[in-house]
Amino acid sequence: MSEFFKSVDKIQYEGPESTNPLAFRHYNPDEVILGKTMREHLRFAACYWHNFCWDGADVFGGGTFGRPWLQAGDAMQRAKEKADVAFEFFSKLNIPFYCFHDIDVAPEGASIKEYVNNFSAMTDVLAQKQEETGLELLWGTANVFSNPRYMSGAATNPDPEIFSYAATQVFNAMNATKKLGGHNYVLWGGREGYETLLNTDLKRERAQLGRFMQMVVEHKYKIGFDGLLLIEPKPQEPTKHQYDYDTATVYGFLKEYGLEKEFAVNIEANHATLSGHSFHHEIATAFALGIFGSIDANRGDAQLGWDTDQFPNSVEEMTLICYEILKNGGYTSGGFNFDTKLRRQSIDAEDLFHGHIGGMDTCALGLKKAAAMIQNDFIDAAKTKRYNGWDQALGQDILNGKLSLEALATQSVDNSIAPKHVSGQQELLENLVNGVIFK
Amino acid sequence: MSEFFKSVDKIQYEGPESTNPLAFRHYNPDEVILGKTMREHLRFAACYWHNFCWDGADVFGGGTFGRPWLQAGDAMQRAKEKADVAFEFFSKLNIPFYCFHDIDVAPEGASIKEYVNNFSAMTDVLAQKQEETGLELLWGTANVFSNPRYMSGAATNPDPEIFSYAATQVFNAMNATKKLGGHNYVLWGGREGYETLLNTDLKRERAQLGRFMQMVVEHKYKIGFDGLLLIEPKPQEPTKHQYDYDTATVYGFLKEYGLEKEFAVNIEANHATLSGHSFHHEIATAFALGIFGSIDANRGDAQLGWDTDQFPNSVEEMTLICYEILKNGGYTSGGFNFDTKLRRQSIDAEDLFHGHIGGMDTCALGLKKAAAMIQNDFIDAAKTKRYNGWDQALGQDILNGKLSLEALATQSVDNSIAPKHVSGQQELLENLVNGVIFK
Amino acid sequence: MSEFFKSVDKIQYEGPESTNPLAFRHYNPDEVILGKTMREHLRFAACYWHNFCWDGADVFGGGTFGRPWLQAGDAMQRAKEKADVAFEFFSKLNIPFYCFHDIDVAPEGASIKEYVNNFSAMTDVLAQKQEETGLELLWGTANVFSNPRYMSGAATNPDPEIFSYAATQVFNAMNATKKLGGHNYVLWGGREGYETLLNTDLKRERAQLGRFMQMVVEHKYKIGFDGLLLIEPKPQEPTKHQYDYDTATVYGFLKEYGLEKEFAVNIEANHATLSGHSFHHEIATAFALGIFGSIDANRGDAQLGWDTDQFPNSVEEMTLICYEILKNGGYTSGGFNFDTKLRRQSIDAEDLFHGHIGGMDTCALGLKKAAAMIQNDFIDAAKTKRYNGWDQALGQDILNGKLSLEALATQSVDNSIAPKHVSGQQELLENLVNGVIFK
Amino acid sequence: MSEFFKSVDKIQYEGPESTNPLAFRHYNPDEVILGKTMREHLRFAACYWHNFCWDGADVFGGGTFGRPWLQAGDAMQRAKEKADVAFEFFSKLNIPFYCFHDIDVAPEGASIKEYVNNFSAMTDVLAQKQEETGLELLWGTANVFSNPRYMSGAATNPDPEIFSYAATQVFNAMNATKKLGGHNYVLWGGREGYETLLNTDLKRERAQLGRFMQMVVEHKYKIGFDGLLLIEPKPQEPTKHQYDYDTATVYGFLKEYGLEKEFAVNIEANHATLSGHSFHHEIATAFALGIFGSIDANRGDAQLGWDTDQFPNSVEEMTLICYEILKNGGYTSGGFNFDTKLRRQSIDAEDLFHGHIGGMDTCALGLKKAAAMIQNDFIDAAKTKRYNGWDQALGQDILNGKLSLEALATQSVDNSIAPKHVSGQQELLENLVNGVIFK
Repeated sequence: MSEFFKSVDKIQYEGPESTNPLAFRHYNPDEVILGKTMREHLRFAACYWHNFCWDGADVFGGGTFGRPWLQAGDAMQRAKEKADVAFEFFSKLNIPFYCFHDIDVAPEGASIKEYVNNFSAMTDVLAQKQEETGLELLWGTANVFSNPRYMSGAATNPDPEIFSYAATQVFNAMNATKKLGGHNYVLWGGREGYETLLNTDLKRERAQLGRFMQMVVEHKYKIGFDGLLLIEPKPQEPTKHQYDYDTATVYGFLKEYGLEKEFAVNIEANHATLSGHSFHHEIATAFALGIFGSIDANRGDAQLGWDTDQFPNSVEEMTLICYEILKNGGYTSGGFNFDTKLRRQSIDAEDLFHGHIGGMDTCALGLKKAAAMIQNDFIDAAKTKRYNGWDQALGQDILNGKLSLEALATQSVDNSIAPKHVSGQQELLENLVNGVIFK
Repeated sequence: MSEFFKSVDKIQYEGPESTNPLAFRHYNPDEVILGKTMREHLRFAACYWHNFCWDGADVFGGGTFGRPWLQAGDAMQRAKEKADVAFEFFSKLNIPFYCFHDIDVAPEGASIKEYVNNFSAMTDVLAQKQEETGLELLWGTANVFSNPRYMSGAATNPDPEIFSYAATQVFNAMNATKKLGGHNYVLWGGREGYETLLNTDLKRERAQLGRFMQMVVEHKYKIGFDGLLLIEPKPQEPTKHQYDYDTATVYGFLKEYGLEKEFAVNIEANHATLSGHSFHHEIATAFALGIFGSIDANRGDAQLGWDTDQFPNSVEEMTLICYEILKNGGYTSGGFNFDTKLRRQSIDAEDLFHGHIGGMDTCALGLKKAAAMIQNDFIDAAKTKRYNGWDQALGQDILNGKLSLEALATQSVDNSIAPKHVSGQQELLENLVNGVIFK
Repeated sequence: MSEFFKSVDKIQYEGPESTNPLAFRHYNPDEVILGKTMREHLRFAACYWHNFCWDGADVFGGGTFGRPWLQAGDAMQRAKEKADVAFEFFSKLNIPFYCFHDIDVAPEGASIKEYVNNFSAMTDVLAQKQEETGLELLWGTANVFSNPRYMSGAATNPDPEIFSYAATQVFNAMNATKKLGGHNYVLWGGREGYETLLNTDLKRERAQLGRFMQMVVEHKYKIGFDGLLLIEPKPQEPTKHQYDYDTATVYGFLKEYGLEKEFAVNIEANHATLSGHSFHHEIATAFALGIFGSIDANRGDAQLGWDTDQFPNSVEEMTLICYEILKNGGYTSGGFNFDTKLRRQSIDAEDLFHGHIGGMDTCALGLKKAAAMIQNDFIDAAKTKRYNGWDQALGQDILNGKLSLEALATQSVDNSIAPKHVSGQQELLENLVNGVIFK
Repeated sequence: MSEFFKSVDKIQYEGPESTNPLAFRHYNPDEVILGKTMREHLRFAACYWHNFCWDGADVFGGGTFGRPWLQAGDAMQRAKEKADVAFEFFSKLNIPFYCFHDIDVAPEGASIKEYVNNFSAMTDVLAQKQEETGLELLWGTANVFSNPRYMSGAATNPDPEIFSYAATQVFNAMNATKKLGGHNYVLWGGREGYETLLNTDLKRERAQLGRFMQMVVEHKYKIGFDGLLLIEPKPQEPTKHQYDYDTATVYGFLKEYGLEKEFAVNIEANHATLSGHSFHHEIATAFALGIFGSIDANRGDAQLGWDTDQFPNSVEEMTLICYEILKNGGYTSGGFNFDTKLRRQSIDAEDLFHGHIGGMDTCALGLKKAAAMIQNDFIDAAKTKRYNGWDQALGQDILNGKLSLEALATQSVDNSIAPKHVSGQQELLENLVNGVIFK
């Protein structure tokens, strides 16, 4: 296919003073921060689905973009055109990774056999594209939520034959991910939830999902896939309630099925806020529970109750996210994937670049400012001082189980303890953070 | 103390046609439903705190009720007057159980020793009151959130001495609960959470809380308390984020510390809705996870973002709650506790009765209608039919681990499976439910 | 076209004891309540769009219903088939009214001229259908939000030519509504709002919208349309913020442009709750402001932040709605329109009937119970007593402007006033309401 | 009273490089921006109530701060001590304005006469303090919501005698504000709303409130007060629904009573977000409606459903707020009042300074960055281009009423118009804004 983004050259770093809207002002891939390049720290990925499989439709209106490769036509031919445009975009954006669902890249076909064949053929196309461009696959996944057959769930469907269809897709998508050198494999349970408890057997559906995940783990080892398996929490939408509600809920589920060492979470900012948590909370919780994996970097709208998947643009928020990640050692196989949609009114081809450039610069600035915080780590110092008592005798005796409830109560009364509360200094700490961000 | 509710006699069942606002229209304690009396099914409790320790203040204004026992005066004398009024109320309300926090019933005192002595003395008063009236204690608990010392948490406080103070209170409250024949012991972590991640070490605080809970379990066995230990989930308020966010989160926490057999949940309707779930969801989830314990029966306001603790008055909602409980075998040691506040404008002494009578009748009607649903269980029938495939060969083979992902995918493709989706019939099921409620 | 709903006969009233899911249990069209038949009170309408123009797609997946008339084919032929099915449904449902958007009933065509011609031809088809079946049109409207041209608004579009296109549609839709004997004409500003203030001139867009509404009023008088003009408030979705946010906002807008006598509101339950209000609040507010018109009867989900458009099924809620409407004299030209969608999993043809039957029975029961409340109107009595002081000298002097702030302050101090607060008795009133609903 | 903040000297501007937490890094009062000093632009005020009348209590626990002047004692003596501390704080903070409620500064007393006398005496104390320190009063107000008598409203109370009591307070507070040279007078209807529609007559209460506001206007002219009268919108809390829900609602109310030229709005950030709007939206709306007055600068928590009144700390948000204000000509008599509370755990005296310094620096930075945006106003340019058609013939003819709906429709069809949608470029504009903020 001929060049689609004719007006755009490869995006380059031009520095903060640049007024070129098609340049990076902060993301400088080779710049070294705390011993690693920004490329290595941030591990940016662009997605196939919102960028190349969506034409701007919403619930109240049709597509506004008019993408040529989404018009009617021979399905495999269109899929190849889409791959051409996608890789042209990824390359020009100067982004090192991409992500896809099986049916983003290959037509579903009219039968399960066609599905297998189409996907296999397109996997070869992608392999060649990766080789030509140097792009890598951050993660692959299977879409087992869009087809009508999945309306009542995939693994949690009341019909085991639909479970089987989903298993077939996941089997093929895992194999394709392995073949393409993917760094992770993601599961998002878009229909694994319920609309009404009146027709739902929670216990059965949990058991089905638990078994499904175990099958995925077994297959991972069988094929020698050495990336992470990731679950992406979301509280609701499309279903009323989704089983992978948030990080803490996923953790409980993993523990129930003995899978907490096998899966990590892929945290999306907008899913975090829909679940009633801050994005920061979800990431800090994942680290505290030992299940942090990767990030879908986007943002929601604090006034809207659905997934808006906007591009991240708050450096204030992203600084704390990057601080949390850096403090915990950074990404292993995960990265920042832009699971982001253009606004439906942003119909120009260049808008795709504006959105991603803004998102990448936001993360890059957040990284730089987080690094500055770490080099003079007043947060760490404040926490160390605040919890100091737990490193002393009384705290250690409690934590080590040396004191029963009765023993502790008795000694407390005997000693007439009267502990005083001390300031949490939240406002001061917030000022110090802003002092770094707005140096 | 002399009689306080002079205008009110013992509340009696008078049947649906009664127009006496100080009578039960639906709660008939001795009426037998599905083999048990309503008293045994519903196990109603009234609470000490909202009814007798709160004078109608809110964040924007002072107390409106003018309760005499909350005026200044000798603290122990006032506590005894409060107990007189409380038991007069419980008795006249014809409610079989009550619940309390340690410092609801006894003055905190000026020192830890005074606390112990006051609480001990008041426990004797309560024991006598129970004997006189036949009231029983549904559960006891310790208030380790109101005193300023707990502003940064009790078990999760950065200061182990404050942990120790809380441990002392819980030790005494567990012992008092045991002494008073309490059926359960509750933990609500009102300050076990955070205001800002900038000064919070999530991992440390989780470990502190985990150890605290283990100490509680050990003490339970030591004193031979045979009731349930209950955790009451709440997502936020007073803190920005509370560790016991919802039932699924509590489950994950319990699993992490090996406590999932030791604790059950005490689910509050208004906490459920604040956490983004329906009340029904939280109860169904607790049963699915095997940790259902008891209920704080109240309601929130769908338009308000804080805990309004109103009296339950939706029979439509309560019918499904009762259905879920009945289907799962009913309460063991738990019950319906009215953790409910009068509206601040409901200042008459009779208003306390109106609120509870309405709540009790709502639950009683819900119970009757749920029993009718169970006697002709179209929900169970619909679910059985819907999941039937999982009881057949393919479903069983999947669940029993006989099929690997590869084997299942291979046979699916070989068989060219093309499963069809079938109607979930939500509207029909909703109509059938209303058909029972509005017979 | 041949019969589509072959398994369904005309729905009949069979009474509360009926177990036939395809019968009314409470809606008895000819039953007289407070001097009018239920048909006259409730004025039920079914809608064209959700029932016959939507195939079950949502943001995360394609259509599940497989409606034959929505398949590809000759557009006008399909439109006629759709009309056949729609009127078969309306007739079998025994519902007296229907509602439509222009492009629900006629193909948009490839040009503005085709649009006009198609719509004109289909208006004739509808006129004939109405005559054959006795159906009446509760209201017509124009869809000026789905076509990509309206992505940035219709009347509030930055391009006056797009305003002109919308004006053309509204002109034709008003004329068609008049021709079909429609009882009202509705405006819903689905894209009249903004996505970001960065590219939006609020003042300009308000002025455009104000002028548009004035043009509509002028046209109404020109063609002698004697129905109500209705605005349907909605706070957001699809846009971030919509100008017709809620009833109070619409009122302010109408006042700004001198239109408060020309428009009334069409209140949708789910829009009410998305705007942070109860359904009841929006209706009571519309009556208090003198702009109540009609209702889109549906329900949202208290846990979800988008328009779910479920069928109403709460008799508890609907009783208060009907009470408010009855107390204020009932509908004039408005009615209960079911702006309701099947759940995406409810794919059977019969599900369309189940949803509507449930909704109609819910409203019918609400009407009966509201009538019972009015016959013994404890709410009215309580309010009369509560505000009694305002009918006495002091209250009247204040309201009539006889007392300046200074005069009132002076006499208050001179008289050493010390007014006492009295109970609002909310719990008692709630119990009395339940006493009527659950007689 | 002796000095309370002994460890703090007068806060000075030290520039961005300062590491002194008790210095301004960005607020430099005498620095000139776009022709005015920062002091003149920002017109900062601190409040009496949260800072000096609140001891850190919340719904779940008592005061944590232990402020000496809030301890029991002679009420007038304590009020004077409070004034000493307040003015010490205001002076050291280097803030030019303050705000108060009547009963923040003077004891309510045991009778209406005592109230009048106490307030009069304290007004003299404040006048002297102002003279000594140079502080000015940004606005005064009356607290007609905290006393139990106001539990059911002040102006909207069902009892006209309670209306009279409120009128007495407002009369005295307006007079005191005039006497102290106050720049504005504020009305916040903290209890002007309802808890339940079951006992509320919306129409009556609106009429009472309308008359109350007219009395206030008349009194303003009578005493020759030349400041603005301001209404502070809030959607709920403490009541379920408040009549001054948001700016658009207030506008409609003012229009109903012919008061839209007499009142402006005092917009609080946290009230904006509780009402489902962004802070920016409320301000832009107020300007579009011509009723912008002043700002209560604080922030809420996107995850919490109540008024947290935190200090503003987002420069990203504040930049757009300042841009909107600057573009519309800046404040007249209004200003940025910090209606802000310390977190309950921030118990140190210095924390009061940290909170305000952070808030002032955040606004100062926002002002600087907004000024930079205005000097190269890409937003204005984008809007001018976007709406250009409305300045041409077609747009003007529509707006000027030259075209009826029919005429416009006819010419549109005759011309076969087929307008194209153009990109809204939201992402690009967002990037440009960040380009200014993170220069």
